[in-house]
Amino acid sequence: MNRPVGIFDSGLGGLTVFRAIAELLPAERLIYLGDTARVPYGTKSAQTVVRYSQENTEFLLDQDVKAVVVACNTASAYAVPRLQRHFKPPVLGVLEPGARQAIAHSAQKRIGVIGTAGTVTSGAYERVLQNIDSQVQVVSEACPLFVPLVEEGWLDAEETRSIARHYLEPLLRAEVDTLILGCTHYPMLRPVIADIMGPDVVLIDSAQAVAEALQELLKSQHLLRAESRRGGPTDHQFFVTDSPERFRRVGEIFLGHPLENVQKVNS
Amino acid sequence: MNRPVGIFDSGLGGLTVFRAIAELLPAERLIYLGDTARVPYGTKSAQTVVRYSQENTEFLLDQDVKAVVVACNTASAYAVPRLQRHFKPPVLGVLEPGARQAIAHSAQKRIGVIGTAGTVTSGAYERVLQNIDSQVQVVSEACPLFVPLVEEGWLDAEETRSIARHYLEPLLRAEVDTLILGCTHYPMLRPVIADIMGPDVVLIDSAQAVAEALQELLKSQHLLRAESRRGGPTDHQFFVTDSPERFRRVGEIFLGHPLENVQKVNS
Repeated sequence: MNRPVGIFDSGLGGLTVFRAIAELLPAERLIYLGDTARVPYGTKSAQTVVRYSQENTEFLLDQDVKAVVVACNTASAYAVPRLQRHFKPPVLGVLEPGARQAIAHSAQKRIGVIGTAGTVTSGAYERVLQNIDSQVQVVSEACPLFVPLVEEGWLDAEETRSIARHYLEPLLRAEVDTLILGCTHYPMLRPVIADIMGPDVVLIDSAQAVAEALQELLKSQHLLRAESRRGGPTDHQFFVTDSPERFRRVGEIFLGHPLENVQKVNS
Repeated sequence: MNRPVGIFDSGLGGLTVFRAIAELLPAERLIYLGDTARVPYGTKSAQTVVRYSQENTEFLLDQDVKAVVVACNTASAYAVPRLQRHFKPPVLGVLEPGARQAIAHSAQKRIGVIGTAGTVTSGAYERVLQNIDSQVQVVSEACPLFVPLVEEGWLDAEETRSIARHYLEPLLRAEVDTLILGCTHYPMLRPVIADIMGPDVVLIDSAQAVAEALQELLKSQHLLRAESRRGGPTDHQFFVTDSPERFRRVGEIFLGHPLENVQKVNS
Protein backbone atom coordinates (compact mmCIF):
# COMPACT_ATOMS: atom_id res chain seq x y z
CA MET A 1 0.00 0.00 0.00
CA ASN A 2 2.84 2.39 0.74
CA ARG A 3 4.66 1.58 -2.47
CA PRO A 4 4.72 4.38 -5.07
CA VAL A 5 2.68 4.67 -8.26
CA GLY A 6 4.74 4.73 -11.48
CA ILE A 7 3.90 6.96 -14.44
CA PHE A 8 5.77 6.93 -17.73
CA ASP A 9 5.59 9.16 -20.76
CA SER A 10 7.59 9.73 -23.93
CA GLY A 11 8.71 13.06 -22.49
CA LEU A 12 7.15 15.80 -20.48
CA GLY A 13 3.58 15.94 -21.80
CA GLY A 14 2.67 13.29 -19.23
CA LEU A 15 3.15 15.90 -16.52
CA THR A 16 -0.51 16.82 -17.16
CA VAL A 17 -1.36 13.27 -16.03
CA PHE A 18 1.10 13.51 -13.14
CA ARG A 19 -0.57 16.70 -11.97
CA ALA A 20 -4.11 15.29 -12.16
CA ILE A 21 -3.07 12.22 -10.13
CA ALA A 22 -1.11 14.25 -7.57
CA GLU A 23 -4.15 16.48 -7.02
CA LEU A 24 -6.72 13.69 -6.79
CA LEU A 25 -4.58 11.31 -4.71
CA PRO A 26 -2.38 13.52 -2.54
CA ALA A 27 -1.48 10.63 -0.23
CA GLU A 28 0.26 8.68 -3.00
CA ARG A 29 3.96 8.97 -3.74
CA LEU A 30 4.57 9.21 -7.52
CA ILE A 31 7.54 8.20 -9.63
CA TYR A 32 7.56 9.74 -13.12
CA LEU A 33 9.75 8.54 -15.99
CA GLY A 34 10.04 10.77 -19.08
CA ASP A 35 11.88 9.11 -21.99
CA THR A 36 13.27 12.45 -23.15
CA ALA A 37 16.26 10.90 -24.95
CA ARG A 38 13.92 9.19 -27.43
CA VAL A 39 10.93 11.55 -27.49
CA PRO A 40 8.66 11.85 -29.48
CA TYR A 41 6.83 8.53 -29.80
CA GLY A 42 4.01 9.95 -31.96
CA THR A 43 5.92 9.72 -35.25
CA LYS A 44 7.51 6.32 -34.58
CA SER A 45 6.43 2.81 -35.48
CA ALA A 46 4.34 0.47 -33.34
CA GLN A 47 7.24 -1.94 -32.93
CA THR A 48 9.59 0.75 -31.63
CA VAL A 49 6.99 2.30 -29.31
CA VAL A 50 6.22 -1.15 -27.85
CA ARG A 51 9.91 -1.81 -27.19
CA TYR A 52 10.38 1.56 -25.47
CA SER A 53 7.20 1.04 -23.41
CA GLN A 54 8.42 -2.34 -22.17
CA GLU A 55 11.77 -0.86 -21.17
CA ASN A 56 10.06 2.03 -19.37
CA THR A 57 7.75 -0.35 -17.50
CA GLU A 58 10.68 -2.49 -16.40
CA PHE A 59 12.47 0.58 -15.08
CA LEU A 60 9.41 1.52 -13.01
CA LEU A 61 9.02 -2.03 -11.70
CA ASP A 62 12.65 -1.85 -10.57
CA GLN A 63 11.53 1.13 -8.43
CA ASP A 64 8.99 -1.22 -6.79
CA VAL A 65 5.85 0.59 -7.99
CA LYS A 66 2.45 -0.92 -7.15
CA ALA A 67 0.83 0.19 -10.44
CA VAL A 68 1.93 1.68 -13.76
CA VAL A 69 0.12 4.53 -15.53
CA VAL A 70 0.96 4.97 -19.22
CA ALA A 71 0.49 8.73 -19.65
CA CYS A 72 1.48 8.82 -23.32
CA ASN A 73 -1.46 8.29 -25.69
CA THR A 74 0.72 6.77 -28.42
CA ALA A 75 2.23 4.26 -25.98
CA SER A 76 -1.26 3.55 -24.60
CA ALA A 77 -2.56 2.97 -28.12
CA TYR A 78 0.20 0.58 -29.15
CA ALA A 79 1.44 -1.10 -25.98
CA VAL A 80 -1.01 -1.27 -23.06
CA PRO A 81 -2.63 -4.66 -23.84
CA ARG A 82 0.81 -6.23 -24.18
CA LEU A 83 2.11 -4.61 -20.98
CA GLN A 84 -0.96 -5.92 -19.16
CA ARG A 85 -0.25 -9.44 -20.43
CA HIS A 86 3.47 -9.36 -19.59
CA PHE A 87 3.70 -7.64 -16.25
CA LYS A 88 2.18 -8.49 -12.89
CA PRO A 89 1.24 -5.09 -11.38
CA PRO A 90 -1.81 -3.39 -12.90
CA VAL A 91 -1.09 -1.23 -15.96
CA LEU A 92 -3.46 1.60 -16.83
CA GLY A 93 -3.47 3.50 -20.13
CA VAL A 94 -5.13 6.81 -20.89
CA LEU A 95 -7.35 5.62 -23.74
CA GLU A 96 -10.10 3.74 -21.96
CA PRO A 97 -10.74 6.29 -19.18
CA GLY A 98 -10.90 9.09 -21.78
CA ALA A 99 -13.16 7.04 -24.04
CA ARG A 100 -15.59 6.25 -21.19
CA GLN A 101 -15.82 9.90 -20.26
CA ALA A 102 -16.38 10.90 -23.90
CA ILE A 103 -19.24 8.44 -24.30
CA ALA A 104 -20.82 9.64 -21.06
CA HIS A 105 -20.83 13.21 -22.40
CA SER A 106 -21.83 12.58 -26.00
CA ALA A 107 -25.55 12.96 -26.62
CA GLN A 108 -25.35 12.37 -30.38
CA LYS A 109 -22.73 9.60 -30.15
CA ARG A 110 -20.55 11.50 -32.61
CA ILE A 111 -17.10 11.66 -31.07
CA GLY A 112 -13.98 13.28 -32.45
CA VAL A 113 -10.44 12.19 -31.57
CA ILE A 114 -7.29 14.22 -32.14
CA GLY A 115 -3.83 12.82 -31.50
CA THR A 116 -0.39 12.12 -32.90
CA ALA A 117 0.08 10.31 -36.21
CA GLY A 118 0.81 7.11 -34.25
CA THR A 119 -2.29 7.30 -32.07
CA VAL A 120 -4.58 8.03 -35.01
CA THR A 121 -2.98 5.43 -37.32
CA SER A 122 -3.30 2.74 -34.65
CA GLY A 123 -7.11 3.06 -34.67
CA ALA A 124 -7.00 2.26 -30.95
CA TYR A 125 -9.46 4.97 -29.85
CA GLU A 126 -12.05 3.77 -32.40
CA ARG A 127 -11.68 0.21 -31.12
CA VAL A 128 -11.97 1.18 -27.46
CA LEU A 129 -14.92 3.53 -28.11
CA GLN A 130 -16.81 0.97 -30.19
CA ASN A 131 -16.13 -1.77 -27.66
CA ILE A 132 -17.88 0.36 -25.05
CA ASP A 133 -20.73 1.41 -27.35
CA SER A 134 -21.00 -0.09 -30.82
CA GLN A 135 -23.39 2.72 -31.91
CA VAL A 136 -20.82 5.46 -31.56
CA GLN A 137 -19.43 7.24 -34.64
CA VAL A 138 -15.77 8.23 -34.47
CA VAL A 139 -13.88 10.79 -36.57
CA SER A 140 -10.11 10.99 -36.00
CA GLU A 141 -7.57 13.55 -37.09
CA ALA A 142 -3.79 13.62 -36.56
CA CYS A 143 -2.41 17.01 -35.48
CA PRO A 144 1.36 16.43 -35.71
CA LEU A 145 2.37 20.09 -35.34
CA PHE A 146 0.59 20.58 -32.00
CA VAL A 147 3.35 18.93 -29.90
CA PRO A 148 6.22 21.07 -31.23
CA LEU A 149 4.03 24.22 -31.04
CA VAL A 150 3.29 23.53 -27.36
CA GLU A 151 6.89 22.64 -26.51
CA GLU A 152 8.09 25.86 -28.11
CA GLY A 153 5.50 27.83 -26.17
CA TRP A 154 3.45 29.06 -29.17
CA LEU A 155 0.29 28.46 -27.13
CA ASP A 156 -1.88 31.29 -28.42
CA ALA A 157 -0.03 32.57 -31.47
CA GLU A 158 -2.04 33.41 -34.58
CA GLU A 159 -0.04 30.77 -36.51
CA THR A 160 -1.08 28.11 -33.96
CA ARG A 161 -4.71 29.18 -34.29
CA SER A 162 -4.51 28.95 -38.07
CA ILE A 163 -2.85 25.52 -38.02
CA ALA A 164 -5.48 24.36 -35.52
CA ARG A 165 -8.30 25.57 -37.79
CA HIS A 166 -6.77 23.50 -40.58
CA TYR A 167 -6.61 20.33 -38.43
CA LEU A 168 -10.03 20.74 -36.81
CA GLU A 169 -11.99 21.58 -39.95
CA PRO A 170 -12.92 17.93 -40.73
CA LEU A 171 -14.20 17.49 -37.16
CA LEU A 172 -16.37 20.60 -37.43
CA ARG A 173 -17.73 19.32 -40.73
CA ALA A 174 -18.50 15.94 -39.15
CA GLU A 175 -20.45 17.77 -36.40
CA VAL A 176 -18.95 15.87 -33.48
CA ASP A 177 -20.45 16.87 -30.12
CA THR A 178 -17.49 15.61 -28.05
CA LEU A 179 -13.78 15.81 -28.77
CA ILE A 180 -11.10 13.71 -27.08
CA LEU A 181 -7.80 15.59 -26.66
CA GLY A 182 -5.89 12.37 -27.37
CA CYS A 183 -2.37 13.57 -26.60
CA THR A 184 -0.95 14.81 -23.32
CA HIS A 185 0.15 18.11 -24.87
CA TYR A 186 -3.21 19.13 -26.27
CA PRO A 187 -4.82 20.39 -23.03
CA MET A 188 -2.24 23.20 -23.22
CA LEU A 189 -4.03 24.31 -26.44
CA ARG A 190 -7.48 23.97 -24.90
CA PRO A 191 -8.43 27.68 -25.24
CA VAL A 192 -7.55 27.67 -28.97
CA ILE A 193 -9.29 24.35 -29.61
CA ALA A 194 -12.39 25.38 -27.62
CA ASP A 195 -12.63 28.65 -29.59
CA ILE A 196 -12.58 26.82 -32.91
CA MET A 197 -14.89 23.95 -31.93
CA GLY A 198 -17.42 26.30 -30.33
CA PRO A 199 -19.31 26.15 -27.01
CA ASP A 200 -21.45 23.12 -27.89
CA VAL A 201 -18.56 20.67 -28.22
CA VAL A 202 -17.37 19.03 -24.99
CA LEU A 203 -13.57 18.66 -24.77
CA ILE A 204 -12.32 15.55 -22.96
CA ASP A 205 -8.94 15.72 -21.26
CA SER A 206 -7.79 12.18 -20.48
CA ALA A 207 -5.56 13.31 -17.61
CA GLN A 208 -8.49 13.87 -15.28
CA ALA A 209 -10.18 10.66 -16.45
CA VAL A 210 -7.12 8.48 -15.90
CA ALA A 211 -6.60 9.91 -12.40
CA GLU A 212 -10.15 8.88 -11.50
CA ALA A 213 -9.66 5.44 -13.05
CA LEU A 214 -6.47 4.99 -11.05
CA GLN A 215 -8.33 5.86 -7.84
CA GLU A 216 -10.97 3.23 -8.66
CA LEU A 217 -8.32 0.65 -9.47
CA LEU A 218 -6.27 1.21 -6.32
CA LYS A 219 -9.41 1.14 -4.21
CA SER A 220 -10.68 -2.09 -5.74
CA GLN A 221 -7.32 -3.80 -5.23
CA HIS A 222 -6.90 -2.42 -1.68
CA LEU A 223 -3.77 -0.57 -2.77
CA LEU A 224 -4.81 2.98 -1.80
CA ARG A 225 -2.45 4.59 0.64
CA ALA A 226 -4.35 5.43 3.80
CA GLU A 227 -2.14 7.74 5.84
CA SER A 228 -0.85 10.99 4.43
CA ARG A 229 2.78 11.23 3.48
CA ARG A 230 5.44 12.93 5.58
CA GLY A 231 7.35 14.40 2.66
CA GLY A 232 4.44 16.14 0.96
CA PRO A 233 4.74 17.13 -2.71
CA THR A 234 8.54 17.20 -2.49
CA ASP A 235 9.02 13.46 -2.23
CA HIS A 236 7.72 12.69 -5.74
CA GLN A 237 10.57 11.62 -8.00
CA PHE A 238 11.22 12.42 -11.65
CA PHE A 239 13.51 10.40 -13.90
CA VAL A 240 14.48 11.40 -17.44
CA THR A 241 16.63 9.65 -20.04
CA ASP A 242 18.12 12.88 -21.44
CA SER A 243 19.65 15.69 -19.40
CA PRO A 244 17.28 17.18 -16.80
CA GLU A 245 17.72 20.86 -17.82
CA ARG A 246 15.22 21.05 -20.66
CA PHE A 247 12.79 18.87 -18.70
CA ARG A 248 12.95 21.27 -15.73
CA ARG A 249 12.53 24.29 -17.97
CA VAL A 250 9.74 23.09 -20.28
CA GLY A 251 8.17 21.17 -17.38
CA GLU A 252 7.32 24.49 -15.80
CA ILE A 253 5.00 25.24 -18.76
CA PHE A 254 3.04 22.15 -17.74
CA LEU A 255 3.14 22.30 -13.93
CA GLY A 256 3.36 26.04 -13.37
CA HIS A 257 6.20 25.64 -10.89
CA PRO A 258 9.84 24.49 -11.06
CA LEU A 259 10.54 20.76 -10.80
CA GLU A 260 12.69 19.30 -8.05
CA ASN A 261 14.12 15.78 -7.72
CA VAL A 262 14.87 15.25 -11.42
CA GLN A 263 17.50 12.56 -12.10
CA LYS A 264 18.97 11.26 -15.34
CA VAL A 265 18.91 7.53 -16.08
CA ASN A 266 20.10 5.69 -19.18
CA SER A 267 17.65 4.90 -21.97
CA MET B 1 39.46 2.67 -52.42
CA ASN B 2 36.46 0.56 -53.28
CA ARG B 3 35.09 0.65 -49.76
CA PRO B 4 31.89 2.65 -49.28
CA VAL B 5 31.49 6.10 -47.73
CA GLY B 6 29.32 6.19 -44.61
CA ILE B 7 26.87 9.00 -43.83
CA PHE B 8 24.83 9.28 -40.66
CA ASP B 9 22.06 11.59 -39.62
CA SER B 10 19.51 11.83 -36.82
CA GLY B 11 16.81 10.94 -39.34
CA LEU B 12 16.05 11.75 -42.91
CA GLY B 13 17.17 15.37 -43.23
CA GLY B 14 20.65 14.09 -44.07
CA LEU B 15 19.29 12.85 -47.38
CA THR B 16 20.06 16.37 -48.68
CA VAL B 17 23.72 15.60 -47.92
CA PHE B 18 23.38 12.11 -49.38
CA ARG B 19 22.02 13.59 -52.60
CA ALA B 20 24.78 16.21 -52.93
CA ILE B 21 27.48 13.54 -52.43
CA ALA B 22 25.83 11.06 -54.81
CA GLU B 23 25.67 13.75 -57.50
CA LEU B 24 29.22 15.04 -57.06
CA LEU B 25 30.86 11.61 -56.59
CA PRO B 26 28.81 9.18 -58.68
CA ALA B 27 31.53 6.52 -58.54
CA GLU B 28 31.27 6.16 -54.76
CA ARG B 29 29.02 3.64 -53.04
CA LEU B 30 27.18 5.25 -50.10
CA ILE B 31 25.83 3.76 -46.89
CA TYR B 32 23.35 5.99 -45.07
CA LEU B 33 22.25 5.50 -41.46
CA GLY B 34 19.23 7.48 -40.21
CA ASP B 35 18.65 7.17 -36.46
CA THR B 36 14.89 7.46 -36.90
CA ALA B 37 14.08 5.67 -33.62
CA ARG B 38 15.71 8.49 -31.63
CA VAL B 39 15.20 11.49 -33.93
CA PRO B 40 15.34 14.48 -33.38
CA TYR B 41 18.77 15.35 -31.97
CA GLY B 42 18.19 19.11 -32.10
CA THR B 43 16.31 19.31 -28.80
CA LYS B 44 18.52 16.86 -26.90
CA SER B 45 21.56 17.39 -24.68
CA ALA B 46 25.20 17.38 -25.77
CA GLN B 47 25.89 14.24 -23.74
CA THR B 48 23.07 12.27 -25.37
CA VAL B 49 23.88 13.47 -28.90
CA VAL B 50 27.54 12.49 -28.41
CA ARG B 51 26.55 9.00 -27.24
CA TYR B 52 24.23 8.49 -30.22
CA SER B 53 26.88 9.80 -32.62
CA GLN B 54 29.46 7.35 -31.31
CA GLU B 55 27.02 4.46 -31.69
CA ASN B 56 26.16 5.54 -35.24
CA THR B 57 29.83 5.82 -36.18
CA GLU B 58 30.56 2.35 -34.82
CA PHE B 59 27.70 0.94 -36.86
CA LEU B 60 29.11 2.50 -40.04
CA LEU B 61 32.64 1.27 -39.24
CA ASP B 62 31.17 -2.23 -38.91
CA GLN B 63 30.07 -1.78 -42.54
CA ASP B 64 33.75 -1.17 -43.40
CA VAL B 65 33.36 2.42 -44.59
CA LYS B 66 36.48 4.35 -45.60
CA ALA B 67 35.20 7.71 -44.28
CA VAL B 68 32.29 8.97 -42.17
CA VAL B 69 30.24 12.05 -43.00
CA VAL B 70 28.16 13.50 -40.15
CA ALA B 71 25.22 14.98 -42.04
CA CYS B 72 23.37 16.21 -38.95
CA ASN B 73 24.36 19.73 -37.89
CA THR B 74 23.57 19.10 -34.22
CA ALA B 75 25.75 15.95 -34.17
CA SER B 76 28.46 17.85 -36.07
CA ALA B 77 28.31 20.68 -33.52
CA TYR B 78 28.55 18.43 -30.48
CA ALA B 79 30.42 15.32 -31.53
CA VAL B 80 32.78 15.66 -34.52
CA PRO B 81 36.00 16.59 -32.65
CA ARG B 82 35.51 13.64 -30.31
CA LEU B 83 34.71 11.24 -33.17
CA GLN B 84 37.88 12.42 -34.93
CA ARG B 85 39.92 11.69 -31.79
CA HIS B 86 38.37 8.27 -31.16
CA PHE B 87 38.07 6.67 -34.57
CA LYS B 88 40.67 5.88 -37.18
CA PRO B 89 38.92 6.62 -40.53
CA PRO B 90 38.47 10.31 -41.38
CA VAL B 91 35.29 11.90 -39.97
CA LEU B 92 33.84 14.95 -41.69
CA GLY B 93 31.15 17.20 -40.21
CA VAL B 94 29.00 19.73 -42.03
CA LEU B 95 30.00 22.78 -39.97
CA GLU B 96 33.46 23.60 -41.28
CA PRO B 97 32.69 23.21 -45.01
CA GLY B 98 29.60 25.41 -44.62
CA ALA B 99 31.52 27.97 -42.57
CA ARG B 100 34.32 28.21 -45.16
CA GLN B 101 31.83 28.77 -47.94
CA ALA B 102 29.99 31.41 -45.91
CA ILE B 103 33.19 33.36 -45.26
CA ALA B 104 34.13 33.17 -48.94
CA HIS B 105 30.76 34.71 -49.87
CA SER B 106 30.49 37.34 -47.14
CA ALA B 107 31.74 40.79 -48.18
CA GLN B 108 30.78 42.49 -44.91
CA LYS B 109 31.83 39.61 -42.66
CA ARG B 110 28.40 39.63 -41.05
CA ILE B 111 27.18 36.07 -41.11
CA GLY B 112 23.89 34.67 -39.83
CA VAL B 113 23.40 31.08 -38.69
CA ILE B 114 20.05 29.35 -38.24
CA GLY B 115 19.77 25.87 -36.76
CA THR B 116 18.20 23.69 -34.10
CA ALA B 117 18.26 24.67 -30.43
CA GLY B 118 21.19 22.28 -29.93
CA THR B 119 23.29 23.64 -32.78
CA VAL B 120 22.73 27.25 -31.74
CA THR B 121 23.25 26.60 -28.01
CA SER B 122 26.50 24.76 -28.70
CA GLY B 123 28.05 27.92 -30.19
CA ALA B 124 29.98 25.64 -32.54
CA TYR B 125 29.36 27.66 -35.71
CA GLU B 126 30.65 30.84 -34.02
CA ARG B 127 33.79 29.00 -32.92
CA VAL B 128 34.45 27.50 -36.35
CA LEU B 129 33.73 30.77 -38.19
CA GLN B 130 35.95 32.80 -35.86
CA ASN B 131 38.73 30.23 -36.05
CA ILE B 132 38.78 30.74 -39.81
CA ASP B 133 38.45 34.55 -39.63
CA SER B 134 38.58 36.29 -36.28
CA GLN B 135 37.06 39.46 -37.80
CA VAL B 136 33.76 37.85 -38.66
CA GLN B 137 30.57 38.82 -36.80
CA VAL B 138 28.08 36.02 -36.19
CA VAL B 139 24.38 36.23 -35.31
CA SER B 140 22.63 32.93 -34.55
CA GLU B 141 18.98 32.09 -34.19
CA ALA B 142 17.32 28.77 -33.32
CA CYS B 143 14.31 27.88 -35.52
CA PRO B 144 12.90 24.83 -33.70
CA LEU B 145 9.61 24.67 -35.61
CA PHE B 146 11.25 24.41 -39.05
CA VAL B 147 11.99 20.67 -38.77
CA PRO B 148 8.43 19.58 -37.92
CA LEU B 149 7.02 21.99 -40.53
CA VAL B 150 9.23 20.43 -43.22
CA GLU B 151 8.53 16.85 -42.11
CA GLU B 152 4.80 17.52 -42.22
CA GLY B 153 5.13 19.02 -45.71
CA TRP B 154 4.06 22.59 -44.81
CA LEU B 155 6.76 23.90 -47.13
CA ASP B 156 5.08 27.02 -48.46
CA ALA B 157 2.08 27.48 -46.19
CA GLU B 158 1.25 30.99 -44.99
CA GLU B 159 1.74 29.78 -41.37
CA THR B 160 5.28 28.62 -42.23
CA ARG B 161 6.04 31.98 -43.84
CA SER B 162 4.77 33.82 -40.78
CA ILE B 163 6.76 31.63 -38.36
CA ALA B 164 9.85 32.12 -40.56
CA ARG B 165 9.41 35.90 -40.47
CA HIS B 166 9.36 35.70 -36.68
CA TYR B 167 12.59 33.65 -36.55
CA LEU B 168 14.47 35.62 -39.20
CA GLU B 169 13.61 39.11 -37.96
CA PRO B 170 16.71 39.41 -35.70
CA LEU B 171 18.95 38.41 -38.63
CA LEU B 172 17.39 41.03 -40.88
CA ARG B 173 17.89 43.62 -38.13
CA ALA B 174 21.54 42.56 -37.78
CA GLU B 175 21.96 43.09 -41.54
CA VAL B 176 23.81 39.86 -42.22
CA ASP B 177 24.90 39.48 -45.85
CA THR B 178 25.25 35.69 -45.70
CA LEU B 179 23.06 33.13 -43.95
CA ILE B 180 24.09 29.55 -43.16
CA LEU B 181 21.16 27.11 -43.35
CA GLY B 182 22.59 25.18 -40.39
CA CYS B 183 20.21 22.22 -40.39
CA THR B 184 19.70 19.58 -43.06
CA HIS B 185 15.97 20.33 -43.29
CA TYR B 186 16.26 24.04 -43.96
CA PRO B 187 17.16 23.88 -47.68
CA MET B 188 13.60 22.58 -48.15
CA LEU B 189 12.42 26.01 -46.94
CA ARG B 190 14.88 27.88 -49.14
CA PRO B 191 12.22 29.71 -51.22
CA VAL B 192 10.48 31.03 -48.09
CA ILE B 193 13.76 31.99 -46.40
CA ALA B 194 15.11 33.65 -49.56
CA ASP B 195 11.90 35.69 -49.92
CA ILE B 196 12.17 37.01 -46.37
CA MET B 197 15.93 37.65 -46.37
CA GLY B 198 15.82 39.38 -49.76
CA PRO B 199 18.01 39.06 -52.87
CA ASP B 200 21.15 40.57 -51.29
CA VAL B 201 21.64 37.83 -48.70
CA VAL B 202 23.53 34.72 -49.85
CA LEU B 203 22.09 31.47 -48.48
CA ILE B 204 24.65 28.74 -47.72
CA ASP B 205 23.50 25.13 -47.93
CA SER B 206 26.09 22.94 -46.18
CA ALA B 207 25.12 19.85 -48.19
CA GLN B 208 26.90 21.10 -51.31
CA ALA B 209 29.88 22.34 -49.27
CA VAL B 210 30.37 19.05 -47.43
CA ALA B 211 30.22 17.08 -50.70
CA GLU B 212 33.06 19.20 -52.07
CA ALA B 213 35.04 18.83 -48.82
CA LEU B 214 34.59 15.06 -49.01
CA GLN B 215 35.91 15.03 -52.57
CA GLU B 216 39.01 16.98 -51.42
CA LEU B 217 39.51 14.68 -48.46
CA LEU B 218 39.21 11.45 -50.45
CA LYS B 219 41.52 12.84 -53.14
CA SER B 220 44.19 13.93 -50.65
CA GLN B 221 44.14 10.53 -48.92
CA HIS B 222 44.08 8.59 -52.24
CA LEU B 223 40.72 7.11 -51.31
CA LEU B 224 38.71 8.28 -54.35
CA ARG B 225 37.18 5.41 -56.25
CA ALA B 226 38.52 5.38 -59.79
CA GLU B 227 36.33 3.06 -61.81
CA SER B 228 32.60 3.59 -62.07
CA ARG B 229 30.34 1.23 -60.19
CA ARG B 230 28.45 -1.65 -61.76
CA GLY B 231 25.33 -1.25 -59.64
CA GLY B 232 24.72 2.40 -60.34
CA PRO B 233 22.47 4.37 -58.00
CA THR B 234 20.69 1.22 -56.89
CA ASP B 235 23.53 -0.20 -54.86
CA HIS B 236 23.52 2.55 -52.24
CA GLN B 237 22.23 1.24 -48.93
CA PHE B 238 19.98 2.89 -46.36
CA PHE B 239 19.71 1.78 -42.73
CA VAL B 240 17.20 3.15 -40.24
CA THR B 241 16.64 2.42 -36.55
CA ASP B 242 12.84 2.73 -36.72
CA SER B 243 10.58 1.07 -39.26
CA PRO B 244 11.42 1.90 -42.89
CA GLU B 245 7.90 2.98 -43.94
CA ARG B 246 7.92 6.60 -42.76
CA PHE B 247 11.53 6.96 -43.94
CA ARG B 248 10.57 5.81 -47.43
CA ARG B 249 7.53 8.08 -47.54
CA VAL B 250 9.02 11.29 -46.10
CA GLY B 251 12.34 10.54 -47.82
CA GLU B 252 10.63 11.15 -51.13
CA ILE B 253 10.09 14.80 -50.09
CA PHE B 254 13.88 15.09 -49.90
CA LEU B 255 15.04 12.99 -52.84
CA GLY B 256 12.14 13.40 -55.21
CA HIS B 257 11.98 9.67 -55.88
CA PRO B 258 11.11 6.56 -53.85
CA LEU B 259 13.87 4.96 -51.77
CA GLU B 260 15.02 1.39 -52.32
CA ASN B 261 17.26 -0.77 -50.14
CA VAL B 262 16.03 0.47 -46.77
CA GLN B 263 16.70 -1.89 -43.85
CA LYS B 264 15.90 -1.64 -40.16
CA VAL B 265 18.66 -2.08 -37.59
CA ASN B 266 18.50 -1.77 -33.80
CA SER B 267 19.31 1.54 -32.14
